Amino acid sequence: MSEKSKSAGGSGGLAGVVVGNTSICTVGKEGHSLLYRGYSVNDLADHAAFEEVAYLLLNGELPSASQLADYQARLKAQRGVPQALKDILEKLPADSHPMDVMRTACSALGCIEPETAENDQAKITDRLLGIFPSVLLYWHHLHQSGKRIDTLAPEDSIAGHFLHLLHGKAPSELQERACDASLTLYAEHGFNASTFASRVAVATLADFYSGITAAIGTLSGPLHGGANEQAMALIERFKDPDDAEAGVMKLLAAKEKIMGFGHRVYKVRDPRSDVIKGWSKKLADSLGDDKLYRISERIEEVMMREKKMFPNLDFFSASAYHQMGIPTGMFTPIFVFSRTAGWASHIVEQRADNKLIRPSAQYVGPEPRAFVTVDQR
Amino acid sequence: MSEKSKSAGGSGGLAGVVVGNTSICTVGKEGHSLLYRGYSVNDLADHAAFEEVAYLLLNGELPSASQLADYQARLKAQRGVPQALKDILEKLPADSHPMDVMRTACSALGCIEPETAENDQAKITDRLLGIFPSVLLYWHHLHQSGKRIDTLAPEDSIAGHFLHLLHGKAPSELQERACDASLTLYAEHGFNASTFASRVAVATLADFYSGITAAIGTLSGPLHGGANEQAMALIERFKDPDDAEAGVMKLLAAKEKIMGFGHRVYKVRDPRSDVIKGWSKKLADSLGDDKLYRISERIEEVMMREKKMFPNLDFFSASAYHQMGIPTGMFTPIFVFSRTAGWASHIVEQRADNKLIRPSAQYVGPEPRAFVTVDQR
Repeated sequence: MSEKSKSAGGSGGLAGVVVGNTSICTVGKEGHSLLYRGYSVNDLADHAAFEEVAYLLLNGELPSASQLADYQARLKAQRGVPQALKDILEKLPADSHPMDVMRTACSALGCIEPETAENDQAKITDRLLGIFPSVLLYWHHLHQSGKRIDTLAPEDSIAGHFLHLLHGKAPSELQERACDASLTLYAEHGFNASTFASRVAVATLADFYSGITAAIGTLSGPLHGGANEQAMALIERFKDPDDAEAGVMKLLAAKEKIMGFGHRVYKVRDPRSDVIKGWSKKLADSLGDDKLYRISERIEEVMMREKKMFPNLDFFSASAYHQMGIPTGMFTPIFVFSRTAGWASHIVEQRADNKLIRPSAQYVGPEPRAFVTVDQR
Repeated sequence: MSEKSKSAGGSGGLAGVVVGNTSICTVGKEGHSLLYRGYSVNDLADHAAFEEVAYLLLNGELPSASQLADYQARLKAQRGVPQALKDILEKLPADSHPMDVMRTACSALGCIEPETAENDQAKITDRLLGIFPSVLLYWHHLHQSGKRIDTLAPEDSIAGHFLHLLHGKAPSELQERACDASLTLYAEHGFNASTFASRVAVATLADFYSGITAAIGTLSGPLHGGANEQAMALIERFKDPDDAEAGVMKLLAAKEKIMGFGHRVYKVRDPRSDVIKGWSKKLADSLGDDKLYRISERIEEVMMREKKMFPNLDFFSASAYHQMGIPTGMFTPIFVFSRTAGWASHIVEQRADNKLIRPSAQYVGPEPRAFVTVDQR
């Protein structure tokens, strides 16, 4: 093994190691910025609909008004769940983790509506962006109340569609906008673990669904997408900000990991955190109950004071989603609804200049040894 | 970006880049060897049952006779398919690719029998090794003939179980031994793409099934596990060795890729090829029809003469499997039955010293640009 190859990894999880080119986004320049195709994620979250952002990620440019309208209509037409997939969702247990349901549904759709020259990667991307909220909520309501819901909600936006199916009624404008902004914030993040998994999968020329299925499974882990669920579990333990401060100090003393803080790539701050924090505050105000928000803010203060650690997107997403009435188990599936735009963009990019992703390993096991047949052991 | 990080990847697919440590196997030392936990794969394929090899990979040492008997009995007890999974298999279309069925079934089993402290990674590994042939053949026979088969075949070996379910009768000793040897040859191969995908997935602390599901999807690509199916498609085009020689010369002249030749890691030869070639010859002799074998051998000669390329495991696996009466669409699923032992060993190893696998990318997209709202575009 050469020194050159040694330097690339060891057990370092490829941190800071450049493994390929991308023109989709930059993460963490100057330790704190995030640009999608050159546009600041903060501008996009404040001024663009998520569908504009998905279009930008997938096509490289922002849509015109008519392109956006066409695109939203196209996505909206993809919300129906085929009967075979409904039947499968009925057979998945009521106590399944929603991420395992998403992973299975994506894989099953790859059997039901396989990738072909006609049903190509662009069409499948539209389909997954349109259908994923329907899949989750069809399964959810069936197993919670036995109701087979109509998955065609009237809202134009994916955020509105999701919230409507969840609550069985139109969301408030505030809820829809807050959820829409969160989708923009979660849409893309370079060679993160789930995106990298999707690139590894399709680099063998596996089908599109294999890439997205691998990504969903990878995202489900608490060190990745699952972090927002862990953050919620933390926040809701506490009865008020003082209780939260005491509790977090205790956890820190016990050297426990506090989920939702710090980031491998951002060194200064996570540019997405202030945006979602703003929405969390607005939602708290509209509810007339800011307990969760104040608990979250106190934890943020304690973590900065004690550990110089900043919240990442996952931390204030937890209180924001909770205040929209979203069950904790759906936090990571929402991440799927959104990141599908990023994953799809990366799959397209990987395929356009493909090379098998097949690294090497440093062997640290036993030396060569002579085989002995089982009767001699 | 430092020179050091630059050297790690570019668009090179991490070729030769060491991304972690492993004590499971060495691939390609001196360009041609493969050792599982220090033992030569050739000795293992010639003298050990696949279950011995799986035990070795998972536990680090070969089993004693009584450990092996216990292990085989434990795996044999895992062949039943739960009703919910049967119901799901019934809903997957008859024309699904078997690999998409395997991917979906693995993910669904993760909902039905989730990973818990009690149902831990060791138990799930046994379960998947036992159940995968049952899953494939239950789906296959149901959609081919409408028959809901009993998935509990009497053979002790996984190879025998699979062949019995496939053909509806006990395999010959030759078939069972040949299939068993092929499982040993496919069982493990370092940080290949599917194994790497499984490590990327579980490094986020995602569940065991997410790792195996990602691996199955990744394996399905023609640049990886799908290569044996492509090799079969090539071989069966030709009516005799001369026709094959002419056809391959034509393909080479057109600069087409011939699947089943060369390897990213082996530079001299693939040590597994001669073993499976030997079994292919024996199967041909027992059939009294060696046409496919002679066609394969001629293609091997032409590729060496014209391109100095050696066959890899996938090439003679194609004729070997075909001569066992196995449909081409099942070649890569057999790879799953076997490589599950390797994937599981790597997941256990990754978890024992885990770090998130999250690389970086070189940005080659647009410079920062100012956002313009949709009404101004």
